[in-house]
Amino acid sequence: MPFELTILGSGSATPTPERYPSAQFLVFGDHHILIDCGEGAQVQMMRYGVKMFRLDLVFISHLHPDHFLGLPGLISSLSLKGRKEPLDIYSPRGLQEILEVQFLFGEVHLSYELRFHVFNDSNESIELDDKYLTAYSFALSHRVACRGFVFKEKKPSRKIKKDLPDASKLPPEAYPVLRHGKDYIDPDGKTWLQEDYTIPNEPPFVYAYITDTLYMPKLASRFADLEISTLYHEATFMNDLKEKAVTTCHSTAKEAAEFAVKCKAQRLLIGHFSSRYKDLEPLLNEAKEIFPNTFLAVDGEKFGA
Amino acid sequence: MPFELTILGSGSATPTPERYPSAQFLVFGDHHILIDCGEGAQVQMMRYGVKMFRLDLVFISHLHPDHFLGLPGLISSLSLKGRKEPLDIYSPRGLQEILEVQFLFGEVHLSYELRFHVFNDSNESIELDDKYLTAYSFALSHRVACRGFVFKEKKPSRKIKKDLPDASKLPPEAYPVLRHGKDYIDPDGKTWLQEDYTIPNEPPFVYAYITDTLYMPKLASRFADLEISTLYHEATFMNDLKEKAVTTCHSTAKEAAEFAVKCKAQRLLIGHFSSRYKDLEPLLNEAKEIFPNTFLAVDGEKFGA
Repeated sequence: MPFELTILGSGSATPTPERYPSAQFLVFGDHHILIDCGEGAQVQMMRYGVKMFRLDLVFISHLHPDHFLGLPGLISSLSLKGRKEPLDIYSPRGLQEILEVQFLFGEVHLSYELRFHVFNDSNESIELDDKYLTAYSFALSHRVACRGFVFKEKKPSRKIKKDLPDASKLPPEAYPVLRHGKDYIDPDGKTWLQEDYTIPNEPPFVYAYITDTLYMPKLASRFADLEISTLYHEATFMNDLKEKAVTTCHSTAKEAAEFAVKCKAQRLLIGHFSSRYKDLEPLLNEAKEIFPNTFLAVDGEKFGA
Repeated sequence: MPFELTILGSGSATPTPERYPSAQFLVFGDHHILIDCGEGAQVQMMRYGVKMFRLDLVFISHLHPDHFLGLPGLISSLSLKGRKEPLDIYSPRGLQEILEVQFLFGEVHLSYELRFHVFNDSNESIELDDKYLTAYSFALSHRVACRGFVFKEKKPSRKIKKDLPDASKLPPEAYPVLRHGKDYIDPDGKTWLQEDYTIPNEPPFVYAYITDTLYMPKLASRFADLEISTLYHEATFMNDLKEKAVTTCHSTAKEAAEFAVKCKAQRLLIGHFSSRYKDLEPLLNEAKEIFPNTFLAVDGEKFGA
């Protein structure tokens, strides 16, 4: 399954020409997902060559301005291009009201439907479950209601062995059954044992997105069984500003790395950097000391599986 | 009086990385004025080095997304920087509602006051009149209520002659009186004739901003006495797409130039270019054939008096 993450914005509340506010474009299987949509995201999409017209899902973590202000313009531009397919938007309560009042006074009539899905207040909930992925949202700890996301690849537990001596005899109908760990009985009554024809599949790809939150070690422990392939965790400050991080309900680079260790992630991306940091290497080094496989998720960077 | 206009965006409905949506920053006397505020305007301000923290007046022509979507983020950033001075915003009805619902759901509490001034429906009205300037708004012809603006320098009609033989004897109190074309009688009863001490002043600087409108020749004729120093007129299309301009209620480069001729402007700036034009020289040439003193108002350009 293809996985490609493009960072559209790595700044925090105050954007700069080098660091736009939070936005990521995620190609996950057949889905084209926008995670947060800070001001300027549509221009960043053009700049970094993502397939913005294939966008089908939008997830907004919370309603602070730096996480959604790019959405009205993007929605409007897609309409000007004549989009017909509906767009599914997952967000906290209020986004629909915000958009509707803008379109009302601006007399904007969209060429396609917006389907709003409002997060509930549960600790964790499944937002979407289809043949490609399962998307969860979960509560974070910020100054306003804010949720993180997990996107987990939908994948059969077994895969067909390569170079089977009688592979050509295996009926096509048997493949999906065997891949899901079940034996296949053909129309003649013959049983094809999954054990003979399959081996365990690689684990599904899991992407977790955690922004605008105090460090949550208990959440990290709860995620230890999730087998997170790539974790994005905000790192607004360095640890010498830990106190400021606590006051503003943000995390430090050190804490992002500690989260990655605790939840046993394979790779860590850090972002949402305060505009005070011109050079990001110190933040990267602070995280790498604890979790070596850390990368800076700066504007324009792309990450594969 | 200083006059400096910085173009922050010269695009139209669909922005591109090269052309952001409409926004201009105007230093006019002691005022720092933002005219329209498309998405990304605050980052453009940083990019082009304007004094965004001295901003005191905002004029929004209409509520199509490409003319105001940058405002919530800018307002929020100024608050994060601890602004205390109130900000005066002149706009059509609806902008206050749009901003308030965003700040409500995002739980954004500003550090300063927004003072909203809503345009009335009159053909023309004075929005602001202080010791530096008079600002008018006037009705344009677009798909939604849209207004253009005139900013006219407040300037005495006369100025004191240089190298007067008895200039040193002129009482300081006489200056403002004579500058306004009146004779001054000093405490001893002596009359200082304005004719002896003054000559006519240069005409006041006048900046006119006209965006998102059908070509309005009658308005241009009405403006012929205004002595417009610099006219900004939208030129979304070239004249071969005149029909499309009419359908979408926009103007062509040729029409912008015809407006400049009719209203006897000294200089014409054209902008709000459709994203279909990669090269803008043909639009410039089309306008220059009719009005030679035309310039492209592209992102980052600065124009003095």
